[in-house]
Amino acid sequence: MTVATKVSAFSWVPDFARGNVRDLRIRWACEEIGRPYHSVLLDATHPRGPEYLSWQPFGQVPAFRDADVTMFESGAILLYLGERDERLLPADPQARWQATSWLIAALNSVEPFLGSLVDMRLFHADQPWAEDAFATLRPLAERRLAQLAETLGDREWLAGPFSVADIAMVTVLKIADGLKLLDPQPALAAYFQRGMARPAHARALEAQLADFSDEPPVQ
Amino acid sequence: MTVATKVSAFSWVPDFARGNVRDLRIRWACEEIGRPYHSVLLDATHPRGPEYLSWQPFGQVPAFRDADVTMFESGAILLYLGERDERLLPADPQARWQATSWLIAALNSVEPFLGSLVDMRLFHADQPWAEDAFATLRPLAERRLAQLAETLGDREWLAGPFSVADIAMVTVLKIADGLKLLDPQPALAAYFQRGMARPAHARALEAQLADFSDEPPVQ
Repeated sequence: MTVATKVSAFSWVPDFARGNVRDLRIRWACEEIGRPYHSVLLDATHPRGPEYLSWQPFGQVPAFRDADVTMFESGAILLYLGERDERLLPADPQARWQATSWLIAALNSVEPFLGSLVDMRLFHADQPWAEDAFATLRPLAERRLAQLAETLGDREWLAGPFSVADIAMVTVLKIADGLKLLDPQPALAAYFQRGMARPAHARALEAQLADFSDEPPVQ
Repeated sequence: MTVATKVSAFSWVPDFARGNVRDLRIRWACEEIGRPYHSVLLDATHPRGPEYLSWQPFGQVPAFRDADVTMFESGAILLYLGERDERLLPADPQARWQATSWLIAALNSVEPFLGSLVDMRLFHADQPWAEDAFATLRPLAERRLAQLAETLGDREWLAGPFSVADIAMVTVLKIADGLKLLDPQPALAAYFQRGMARPAHARALEAQLADFSDEPPVQ
Protein backbone atom coordinates (compact mmCIF):
# COMPACT_ATOMS: atom_id res chain seq x y z
CA MET A 1 0.00 0.00 0.00
CA THR A 2 1.26 3.44 -0.84
CA VAL A 3 0.90 5.87 2.03
CA ALA A 4 0.59 9.33 0.59
CA THR A 5 0.82 11.25 3.86
CA LYS A 6 4.30 12.39 4.88
CA VAL A 7 5.16 14.14 8.14
CA SER A 8 8.65 15.44 8.81
CA ALA A 9 10.31 14.68 12.14
CA PHE A 10 13.79 14.50 13.65
CA SER A 11 15.94 11.36 13.73
CA TRP A 12 17.51 12.38 17.03
CA VAL A 13 16.92 15.06 19.68
CA PRO A 14 18.25 15.46 23.23
CA ASP A 15 16.31 13.68 25.99
CA PHE A 16 14.50 16.84 27.16
CA ALA A 17 12.87 17.25 23.76
CA ARG A 18 11.75 13.64 23.31
CA GLY A 19 7.98 13.46 23.36
CA ASN A 20 7.77 17.23 22.91
CA VAL A 21 8.71 17.76 19.27
CA ARG A 22 5.72 19.11 17.44
CA ASP A 23 5.35 16.35 14.87
CA LEU A 24 3.71 14.61 17.85
CA ARG A 25 0.62 16.76 17.26
CA ILE A 26 0.24 15.48 13.72
CA ARG A 27 0.98 11.90 14.61
CA TRP A 28 -1.66 12.17 17.35
CA ALA A 29 -4.29 13.55 14.99
CA CYS A 30 -3.55 10.81 12.46
CA GLU A 31 -3.79 8.15 15.17
CA GLU A 32 -7.17 9.48 16.34
CA ILE A 33 -8.66 8.76 12.92
CA GLY A 34 -6.53 5.82 11.83
CA ARG A 35 -4.94 7.79 9.00
CA PRO A 36 -1.68 6.14 7.90
CA TYR A 37 1.37 8.38 7.52
CA HIS A 38 5.08 8.03 6.99
CA SER A 39 7.60 10.07 8.89
CA VAL A 40 10.36 11.76 6.89
CA LEU A 41 13.33 11.93 9.24
CA LEU A 42 15.74 14.85 9.33
CA ASP A 43 19.06 15.25 11.07
CA ALA A 44 18.39 17.96 13.66
CA THR A 45 22.10 18.46 14.24
CA HIS A 46 22.77 19.67 10.68
CA PRO A 47 21.48 22.78 8.94
CA ARG A 48 18.55 21.93 6.72
CA GLY A 49 19.22 22.13 2.98
CA PRO A 50 17.33 24.13 0.37
CA GLU A 51 14.99 21.27 -0.48
CA TYR A 52 13.69 21.05 3.06
CA LEU A 53 13.57 24.82 3.46
CA SER A 54 11.31 25.00 0.43
CA TRP A 55 8.96 22.72 2.36
CA GLN A 56 9.41 24.31 5.82
CA PRO A 57 10.90 27.81 5.60
CA PHE A 58 12.29 27.88 9.15
CA GLY A 59 13.78 24.38 9.04
CA GLN A 60 11.40 23.27 11.77
CA VAL A 61 9.29 20.13 12.02
CA PRO A 62 6.64 19.13 11.22
CA ALA A 63 6.06 19.77 7.55
CA PHE A 64 3.29 17.84 5.86
CA ARG A 65 2.50 16.51 2.42
CA ASP A 66 -0.30 14.38 1.03
CA ALA A 67 -1.85 13.80 -2.39
CA ASP A 68 -3.57 17.21 -2.24
CA VAL A 69 -1.40 19.70 -0.37
CA THR A 70 2.11 20.54 0.76
CA MET A 71 2.13 22.64 3.92
CA PHE A 72 3.79 23.35 7.27
CA GLU A 73 3.14 24.54 10.87
CA SER A 74 1.56 22.02 13.21
CA GLY A 75 -1.40 24.31 13.94
CA ALA A 76 -2.24 24.66 10.27
CA ILE A 77 -1.80 20.94 9.62
CA LEU A 78 -4.15 20.14 12.52
CA LEU A 79 -6.78 22.41 10.96
CA TYR A 80 -6.29 20.73 7.59
CA LEU A 81 -6.72 17.25 9.04
CA GLY A 82 -9.64 18.49 11.13
CA GLU A 83 -11.50 19.86 8.17
CA ARG A 84 -11.41 16.40 6.62
CA ASP A 85 -12.69 14.43 9.61
CA GLU A 86 -15.37 15.37 12.11
CA ARG A 87 -13.68 13.30 14.78
CA LEU A 88 -10.99 15.99 14.76
CA LEU A 89 -13.09 19.11 14.14
CA PRO A 90 -16.88 19.35 14.25
CA ALA A 91 -18.58 20.38 11.00
CA ASP A 92 -21.25 22.53 12.69
CA PRO A 93 -20.05 26.13 12.14
CA GLN A 94 -20.31 27.40 15.71
CA ALA A 95 -18.64 24.30 17.16
CA ARG A 96 -16.00 24.35 14.43
CA TRP A 97 -15.03 27.97 14.89
CA GLN A 98 -15.00 27.71 18.68
CA ALA A 99 -12.59 24.81 18.34
CA THR A 100 -10.52 26.83 15.88
CA SER A 101 -10.51 29.75 18.33
CA TRP A 102 -9.19 27.43 21.03
CA LEU A 103 -6.53 25.94 18.78
CA ILE A 104 -5.21 29.41 18.03
CA ALA A 105 -5.49 30.34 21.72
CA ALA A 106 -3.29 27.37 22.61
CA LEU A 107 -0.61 28.49 20.15
CA ASN A 108 -0.80 32.25 20.51
CA SER A 109 -2.30 33.04 23.95
CA VAL A 110 -0.98 30.20 26.11
CA GLU A 111 2.18 28.76 24.54
CA PRO A 112 4.14 32.06 24.42
CA PHE A 113 3.86 32.45 28.21
CA LEU A 114 5.17 28.94 28.76
CA GLY A 115 7.74 29.07 25.98
CA SER A 116 9.42 32.12 27.46
CA LEU A 117 9.67 30.35 30.80
CA VAL A 118 11.03 27.08 29.52
CA ASP A 119 13.56 28.92 27.35
CA MET A 120 15.02 30.40 30.54
CA ARG A 121 15.54 26.89 31.91
CA LEU A 122 16.66 25.12 28.76
CA PHE A 123 18.51 27.61 26.60
CA HIS A 124 19.49 30.55 28.79
CA ALA A 125 20.18 28.74 32.06
CA ASP A 126 23.84 29.74 31.85
CA GLN A 127 22.91 33.44 31.84
CA PRO A 128 23.26 35.26 35.16
CA TRP A 129 19.80 36.84 34.69
CA ALA A 130 17.92 33.66 33.83
CA GLU A 131 16.58 32.91 37.31
CA ASP A 132 15.44 36.49 37.92
CA ALA A 133 13.73 36.59 34.53
CA PHE A 134 12.08 33.25 35.28
CA ALA A 135 10.81 34.60 38.60
CA THR A 136 9.31 37.65 36.86
CA LEU A 137 7.71 35.72 34.00
CA ARG A 138 6.39 32.85 36.11
CA PRO A 139 3.40 34.71 37.65
CA LEU A 140 2.31 35.83 34.17
CA ALA A 141 2.22 32.21 33.02
CA GLU A 142 0.45 31.16 36.22
CA ARG A 143 -2.21 33.82 35.70
CA ARG A 144 -2.80 32.69 32.14
CA LEU A 145 -3.15 29.07 33.28
CA ALA A 146 -5.58 30.17 36.00
CA GLN A 147 -7.71 31.92 33.37
CA LEU A 148 -7.65 28.79 31.26
CA ALA A 149 -8.64 26.62 34.25
CA GLU A 150 -11.46 29.04 35.12
CA THR A 151 -12.90 28.83 31.61
CA LEU A 152 -12.45 25.09 31.33
CA GLY A 153 -14.29 24.48 34.59
CA ASP A 154 -15.44 20.90 34.57
CA ARG A 155 -15.74 20.57 30.79
CA GLU A 156 -14.26 17.41 29.38
CA TRP A 157 -12.73 19.11 26.34
CA LEU A 158 -12.24 22.74 25.32
CA ALA A 159 -14.95 23.05 22.70
CA GLY A 160 -17.58 20.34 22.89
CA PRO A 161 -16.25 17.00 21.64
CA PHE A 162 -12.54 16.20 21.57
CA SER A 163 -10.91 18.13 18.71
CA VAL A 164 -7.62 19.35 17.30
CA ALA A 165 -7.94 22.23 19.78
CA ASP A 166 -7.33 19.71 22.55
CA ILE A 167 -4.35 18.22 20.72
CA ALA A 168 -2.87 21.71 20.52
CA MET A 169 -3.66 22.66 24.12
CA VAL A 170 -2.62 19.37 25.73
CA THR A 171 0.73 19.42 23.92
CA VAL A 172 1.20 23.05 25.02
CA LEU A 173 0.32 22.11 28.60
CA LYS A 174 3.12 19.53 28.56
CA ILE A 175 5.42 22.50 28.98
CA ALA A 176 3.45 23.69 32.01
CA ASP A 177 3.45 20.20 33.45
CA GLY A 178 7.21 19.97 33.05
CA LEU A 179 7.55 23.22 34.99
CA LYS A 180 5.14 21.96 37.71
CA LEU A 181 2.75 24.80 36.92
CA LEU A 182 -0.33 22.57 36.71
CA ASP A 183 -0.20 21.55 40.37
CA PRO A 184 -2.26 24.56 41.61
CA GLN A 185 -4.96 23.91 38.97
CA PRO A 186 -6.46 20.46 39.56
CA ALA A 187 -9.19 20.77 36.90
CA LEU A 188 -6.62 21.80 34.32
CA ALA A 189 -4.25 19.05 35.43
CA ALA A 190 -7.11 16.55 35.07
CA TYR A 191 -7.86 17.86 31.57
CA PHE A 192 -4.20 17.48 30.66
CA GLN A 193 -4.16 13.93 31.98
CA ARG A 194 -7.35 13.08 30.06
CA GLY A 195 -5.65 14.16 26.87
CA MET A 196 -2.43 12.31 27.61
CA ALA A 197 -4.39 9.16 28.45
CA ARG A 198 -6.00 8.88 25.03
CA PRO A 199 -4.79 5.74 23.25
CA ALA A 200 -4.08 7.78 20.11
CA HIS A 201 -1.73 10.00 22.10
CA ALA A 202 0.10 6.95 23.45
CA ARG A 203 0.51 5.53 19.95
CA ALA A 204 1.73 8.87 18.60
CA LEU A 205 4.25 9.22 21.41
CA GLU A 206 5.50 5.69 20.88
CA ALA A 207 5.90 6.37 17.15
CA GLN A 208 7.85 9.58 17.75
CA LEU A 209 10.14 7.92 20.27
CA ALA A 210 10.67 4.92 17.99
CA ASP A 211 11.95 7.23 15.26
CA PHE A 212 14.76 8.62 17.45
CA SER A 213 18.15 6.97 17.30
CA ASP A 214 19.92 6.48 20.63
CA GLU A 215 22.93 8.56 19.70
CA PRO A 216 23.21 11.80 17.76
CA PRO A 217 24.31 11.33 14.16
CA VAL A 218 28.06 11.23 13.59
CA GLN A 219 29.20 14.67 12.41
CA MET B 1 -29.10 48.98 8.21
CA THR B 2 -28.36 46.42 10.89
CA VAL B 3 -24.72 45.45 10.97
CA ALA B 4 -24.49 41.95 12.36
CA THR B 5 -20.70 41.82 12.68
CA LYS B 6 -19.30 42.84 16.06
CA VAL B 7 -15.60 43.12 16.89
CA SER B 8 -14.41 43.89 20.41
CA ALA B 9 -11.77 46.58 20.95
CA PHE B 10 -10.53 48.87 23.70
CA SER B 11 -11.85 52.38 24.36
CA TRP B 12 -8.43 53.57 25.53
CA VAL B 13 -4.87 52.20 25.54
CA PRO B 14 -1.52 53.89 26.20
CA ASP B 15 0.16 55.54 23.23
CA PHE B 16 2.63 52.70 22.62
CA ALA B 17 -0.25 50.29 22.00
CA ARG B 18 -2.25 52.49 19.64
CA GLY B 19 -2.26 51.00 16.18
CA ASN B 20 -0.99 47.70 17.59
CA VAL B 21 -4.01 46.23 19.34
CA ARG B 22 -5.05 43.07 17.57
CA ASP B 23 -8.58 44.11 16.63
CA LEU B 24 -6.68 45.96 13.88
CA ARG B 25 -6.24 42.63 12.10
CA ILE B 26 -9.99 42.06 11.93
CA ARG B 27 -10.78 45.65 10.98
CA TRP B 28 -8.18 45.34 8.20
CA ALA B 29 -9.69 42.12 6.85
CA CYS B 30 -13.17 43.65 6.92
CA GLU B 31 -11.93 46.75 5.11
CA GLU B 32 -10.28 44.64 2.39
CA ILE B 33 -13.66 43.20 1.42
CA GLY B 34 -15.94 46.07 2.38
CA ARG B 35 -17.61 44.08 5.14
CA PRO B 36 -19.33 46.40 7.62
CA TYR B 37 -18.71 45.81 11.34
CA HIS B 38 -19.35 47.54 14.62
CA SER B 39 -16.73 47.78 17.31
CA VAL B 40 -17.78 46.84 20.84
CA LEU B 41 -15.60 48.95 23.12
CA LEU B 42 -14.23 47.71 26.43
CA ASP B 43 -12.51 49.55 29.23
CA ALA B 44 -8.99 48.12 29.21
CA THR B 45 -8.25 49.61 32.63
CA HIS B 46 -10.90 47.51 34.40
CA PRO B 47 -11.07 43.75 34.81
CA ARG B 48 -13.43 42.25 32.29
CA GLY B 49 -16.70 40.89 33.69
CA PRO B 50 -18.15 37.40 33.29
CA GLU B 51 -20.18 38.33 30.21
CA TYR B 52 -17.09 39.33 28.27
CA LEU B 53 -15.07 36.42 29.61
CA SER B 54 -17.71 34.06 28.24
CA TRP B 55 -16.98 35.63 24.84
CA GLN B 56 -13.18 35.93 25.21
CA PRO B 57 -11.82 33.68 27.98
CA PHE B 58 -8.61 35.66 28.56
CA GLY B 59 -10.26 39.08 28.53
CA GLN B 60 -8.30 40.01 25.42
CA VAL B 61 -9.46 41.67 22.24
CA PRO B 62 -10.62 40.99 19.61
CA ALA B 63 -13.62 38.76 20.06
CA PHE B 64 -15.99 38.41 17.13
CA ARG B 65 -19.67 37.74 16.57
CA ASP B 66 -21.85 37.66 13.48
CA ALA B 67 -25.16 36.07 12.52
CA ASP B 68 -23.51 32.65 12.31
CA VAL B 69 -20.73 32.35 14.88
CA THR B 70 -19.35 33.69 18.14
CA MET B 71 -15.60 33.26 18.38
CA PHE B 72 -12.27 34.74 19.49
CA GLU B 73 -8.53 34.94 18.70
CA SER B 74 -7.55 37.20 15.83
CA GLY B 75 -5.86 34.37 13.95
CA ALA B 76 -9.00 32.24 14.05
CA ILE B 77 -11.24 35.16 13.07
CA LEU B 78 -8.98 35.91 10.09
CA LEU B 79 -9.36 32.30 8.94
CA TYR B 80 -13.14 32.52 9.37
CA LEU B 81 -13.38 35.70 7.32
CA GLY B 82 -10.96 34.25 4.79
CA GLU B 83 -12.99 31.14 4.23
CA ARG B 84 -15.92 33.35 3.25
CA ASP B 85 -14.10 35.55 0.73
CA GLU B 86 -11.44 34.61 -1.78
CA ARG B 87 -9.97 38.08 -1.60
CA LEU B 88 -8.79 37.10 1.87
CA LEU B 89 -7.96 33.43 1.36
CA PRO B 90 -7.74 31.59 -1.97
CA ALA B 91 -10.19 28.72 -2.46
CA ASP B 92 -7.71 26.49 -4.31
CA PRO B 93 -6.63 23.90 -1.70
CA GLN B 94 -2.87 24.18 -2.12
CA ALA B 95 -2.94 28.00 -2.14
CA ARG B 96 -5.36 28.05 0.78
CA TRP B 97 -3.36 25.75 2.99
CA GLN B 98 -0.08 27.47 2.18
CA ALA B 99 -1.67 30.74 3.26
CA THR B 100 -2.99 29.06 6.40
CA SER B 101 0.50 27.70 7.09
CA TRP B 102 1.89 31.22 6.82
CA LEU B 103 -0.79 32.70 9.05
CA ILE B 104 0.07 30.19 11.77
CA ALA B 105 3.79 30.80 11.16
CA ALA B 106 3.26 34.52 11.79
CA LEU B 107 1.56 33.82 15.10
CA ASN B 108 3.55 30.86 16.35
CA SER B 109 6.97 30.93 14.66
CA VAL B 110 7.66 34.66 14.29
CA GLU B 111 5.61 36.59 16.85
CA PRO B 112 6.95 34.76 19.95
CA PHE B 113 10.52 35.83 19.11
CA LEU B 114 9.45 39.45 18.78
CA GLY B 115 7.00 39.40 21.67
CA SER B 116 9.68 38.28 24.11
CA LEU B 117 11.89 41.13 22.97
CA VAL B 118 9.29 43.86 23.14
CA ASP B 119 8.16 42.65 26.57
CA MET B 120 11.66 43.38 27.84
CA ARG B 121 11.33 46.95 26.63
CA LEU B 122 7.72 47.63 27.57
CA PHE B 123 6.89 45.60 30.63
CA HIS B 124 10.15 44.55 32.26
CA ALA B 125 12.28 47.61 31.51
CA ASP B 126 12.54 48.35 35.24
CA GLN B 127 14.16 44.96 35.87
CA PRO B 128 17.94 44.98 36.26
CA TRP B 129 18.23 42.01 33.91
CA ALA B 130 16.04 43.36 31.11
CA GLU B 131 18.83 44.75 28.92
CA ASP B 132 20.97 41.62 29.21
CA ALA B 133 17.99 39.44 28.39
CA PHE B 134 17.18 41.67 25.42
CA ALA B 135 20.75 41.35 24.18
CA THR B 136 20.57 37.54 24.40
CA LEU B 137 17.15 37.24 22.75
CA ARG B 138 17.76 39.79 20.00
CA PRO B 139 19.98 37.60 17.77
CA LEU B 140 17.38 34.83 17.91
CA ALA B 141 14.73 37.23 16.60
CA GLU B 142 17.15 38.56 13.97
CA ARG B 143 17.87 35.05 12.77
CA ARG B 144 14.16 34.26 12.48
CA LEU B 145 13.58 37.46 10.49
CA ALA B 146 16.51 36.60 8.22
CA GLN B 147 14.94 33.19 7.52
CA LEU B 148 11.66 34.88 6.73
CA ALA B 149 13.38 37.37 4.42
CA GLU B 150 15.23 34.54 2.68
CA THR B 151 12.00 32.66 2.00
CA LEU B 152 10.09 35.75 0.96
CA GLY B 153 12.75 36.72 -1.56
CA ASP B 154 11.15 39.08 -4.04
CA ARG B 155 7.62 37.71 -3.70
CA GLU B 156 4.97 40.34 -3.36
CA TRP B 157 2.99 38.43 -0.70
CA LEU B 158 3.66 35.33 1.38
CA ALA B 159 1.45 32.84 -0.43
CA GLY B 160 0.43 33.93 -3.90
CA PRO B 161 -2.17 36.71 -3.80
CA PHE B 162 -2.59 38.96 -0.78
CA SER B 163 -4.31 37.00 2.01
CA VAL B 164 -5.04 36.91 5.72
CA ALA B 165 -1.55 35.44 6.11
CA ASP B 166 -0.18 38.84 5.11
CA ILE B 167 -2.48 40.64 7.54
CA ALA B 168 -1.13 38.41 10.31
CA MET B 169 2.52 38.73 9.26
CA VAL B 170 2.52 42.47 8.58
CA THR B 171 0.92 43.20 11.96
CA VAL B 172 3.50 40.93 13.61
CA LEU B 173 6.30 42.72 11.74
CA LYS B 174 5.11 46.02 13.23
CA ILE B 175 6.80 44.82 16.41
CA ALA B 176 10.04 44.20 14.51
CA ASP B 177 9.78 47.58 12.84
CA GLY B 178 9.31 49.28 16.20
CA LEU B 179 12.49 47.59 17.42
CA LYS B 180 14.38 48.61 14.24
CA LEU B 181 14.92 44.96 13.37
CA LEU B 182 13.76 45.29 9.77
CA ASP B 183 16.59 47.63 8.75
CA PRO B 184 19.03 44.79 7.88
CA GLN B 185 16.40 43.06 5.71
CA PRO B 186 15.41 45.41 2.88
CA ALA B 187 13.17 42.89 1.07
CA LEU B 188 11.30 42.18 4.28
CA ALA B 189 11.06 45.87 5.10
CA ALA B 190 9.63 46.48 1.62
CA TYR B 191 7.09 43.69 2.13
CA PHE B 192 6.10 45.26 5.44
CA GLN B 193 5.70 48.66 3.81
CA ARG B 194 3.62 47.15 0.98
CA GLY B 195 1.23 45.78 3.55
CA MET B 196 1.07 48.98 5.57
CA ALA B 197 0.43 50.98 2.39
CA ARG B 198 -2.76 49.12 1.50
CA PRO B 199 -5.75 51.46 1.68
CA ALA B 200 -7.67 48.90 3.73
CA HIS B 201 -4.90 48.95 6.34
CA ALA B 202 -5.05 52.73 6.51
CA ARG B 203 -8.82 52.69 6.99
CA ALA B 204 -8.56 50.01 9.68
CA LEU B 205 -5.89 51.96 11.53
CA GLU B 206 -7.93 55.12 11.35
CA ALA B 207 -10.97 53.28 12.70
CA GLN B 208 -9.01 51.81 15.61
CA LEU B 209 -7.50 55.17 16.52
CA ALA B 210 -10.88 56.90 16.23
CA ASP B 211 -12.30 54.52 18.84
CA PHE B 212 -9.73 55.55 21.46
CA SER B 213 -10.60 58.29 23.89
CA ASP B 214 -7.83 60.80 24.62
CA GLU B 215 -7.75 60.10 28.33
CA PRO B 216 -8.05 56.85 30.26
CA PRO B 217 -11.49 56.25 31.77
CA VAL B 218 -12.05 57.78 35.20
CA GLN B 219 -11.56 55.08 37.83
